[in-house]
Amino acid sequence: MNIGRLLGCGLLAGMLLVGAEDHGEKSLAARVQRLEDQEAIRMLLVDYGRSLDARDFVKYSSLFAKDGEWSGGFGTAKGPAAIKAMMDKEIGSTPAPRPNSTYHLLSNFAIDVHGDTGTVWSRWAFVVTTKENTPSIMYGGHYDDIVVREDGHWKFKKRVAGSDIPYLANPAPAK
Amino acid sequence: MNIGRLLGCGLLAGMLLVGAEDHGEKSLAARVQRLEDQEAIRMLLVDYGRSLDARDFVKYSSLFAKDGEWSGGFGTAKGPAAIKAMMDKEIGSTPAPRPNSTYHLLSNFAIDVHGDTGTVWSRWAFVVTTKENTPSIMYGGHYDDIVVREDGHWKFKKRVAGSDIPYLANPAPAK
Amino acid sequence: MNIGRLLGCGLLAGMLLVGAEDHGEKSLAARVQRLEDQEAIRMLLVDYGRSLDARDFVKYSSLFAKDGEWSGGFGTAKGPAAIKAMMDKEIGSTPAPRPNSTYHLLSNFAIDVHGDTGTVWSRWAFVVTTKENTPSIMYGGHYDDIVVREDGHWKFKKRVAGSDIPYLANPAPAK
Repeated sequence: MNIGRLLGCGLLAGMLLVGAEDHGEKSLAARVQRLEDQEAIRMLLVDYGRSLDARDFVKYSSLFAKDGEWSGGFGTAKGPAAIKAMMDKEIGSTPAPRPNSTYHLLSNFAIDVHGDTGTVWSRWAFVVTTKENTPSIMYGGHYDDIVVREDGHWKFKKRVAGSDIPYLANPAPAK
Repeated sequence: MNIGRLLGCGLLAGMLLVGAEDHGEKSLAARVQRLEDQEAIRMLLVDYGRSLDARDFVKYSSLFAKDGEWSGGFGTAKGPAAIKAMMDKEIGSTPAPRPNSTYHLLSNFAIDVHGDTGTVWSRWAFVVTTKENTPSIMYGGHYDDIVVREDGHWKFKKRVAGSDIPYLANPAPAK
Repeated sequence: MNIGRLLGCGLLAGMLLVGAEDHGEKSLAARVQRLEDQEAIRMLLVDYGRSLDARDFVKYSSLFAKDGEWSGGFGTAKGPAAIKAMMDKEIGSTPAPRPNSTYHLLSNFAIDVHGDTGTVWSRWAFVVTTKENTPSIMYGGHYDDIVVREDGHWKFKKRVAGSDIPYLANPAPAK
């Protein structure tokens, strides 16, 4: 058969193929992306607790978006630099405990992602070492988060750390 | 080239395409569906604890299938309406605590999905506020679940709430 | 149209199709595989705690690779048989508690997978039943894992069980 006919077939086959990709495959890719986002956000939640417990406030503050905000018992800070400064002042100034002698037990992750943003709700329990050298939950609370994809990474756009046991009123959310 | 030949090519290309979709793509889609189902079931487990702790028994009972059954320390109830009535009677009748002053800490999710049904095993710990205003685990147990996809949503077909600490014998599973 | 032309179209369509599969679909399949691996590793972590708490040391030891190693308070053991023997000796020799009266509360899973291997970090809390018949966290620690895909299943290549509360120095990692 001649080139003209080959091209005719090729065009037709190509059109059908592109149609299929646009339809089935892209939507499948979008579904896979959403699942990857849910995994990435789980890691964000765990990295928060892990860096906090390790007093790695460089890592900790890097989990927030450029204009990401933390609100909780220490007040409110906006942006990684201000959040790191707040943590250095509030926690870094006290003697560091033995690693893992105090830690955040994170649970009940409720993750809701839509495209490049999402909301998350989760619980935290702060475990300390008692005088009897046993673990004990000292404080309990929950997080209300808005998360965003920034430069391809999921970050906290806003994290409100609620203290429920003992109860502390959350700071008024900053504008 | 003429229409007849175009159609010939189109048919052939289309057949190949459909073959490919049936083979590779569908199975990939099925795998993605299973991952989405596992995520949805995680949310079901978390929504259960969250609505229970908030005493939102409308939401709580909506997590059960039309013939979904709850069995535990309160006995057995079948269907959202009966489950809501049971919770209203057993819990709703007591004064509501301050939100999050008592809660279910959920962990160790073991999810096994097959198509439109699945089994789940998980642990729960009921945390309360002590007189000293600190969190304390008051009760501990585990859930044995059968979950089903109903109208496109994952629901509890059967949830047995086992009380392990202190130990309470589970009610005989209803027929 | 004649066979020659049909074949011409078929070849062209087929080539386009294969190209599409090699390109888009394979990478999507690899992403789905990674998500499935993350789910499988979560199950491995939960199965570890579940079989340990149930004193099912046959299941427990089967979660380790052929040359998989456990290191912790009991020392170090390598391979399922040696790990089962260690658990039988260290735990099996003491009277079995009522099921679920003691258990491992697992949390903060940080899973990092690359192809057929991965690293995992997570926390554990060992909950016991007090004389007052309430749950209490007796010990707390974390796991450092290397996991591998062996015969299509994810297994522990190396699990170091760190005891943080009370603190016990980890055994020197075996060569």
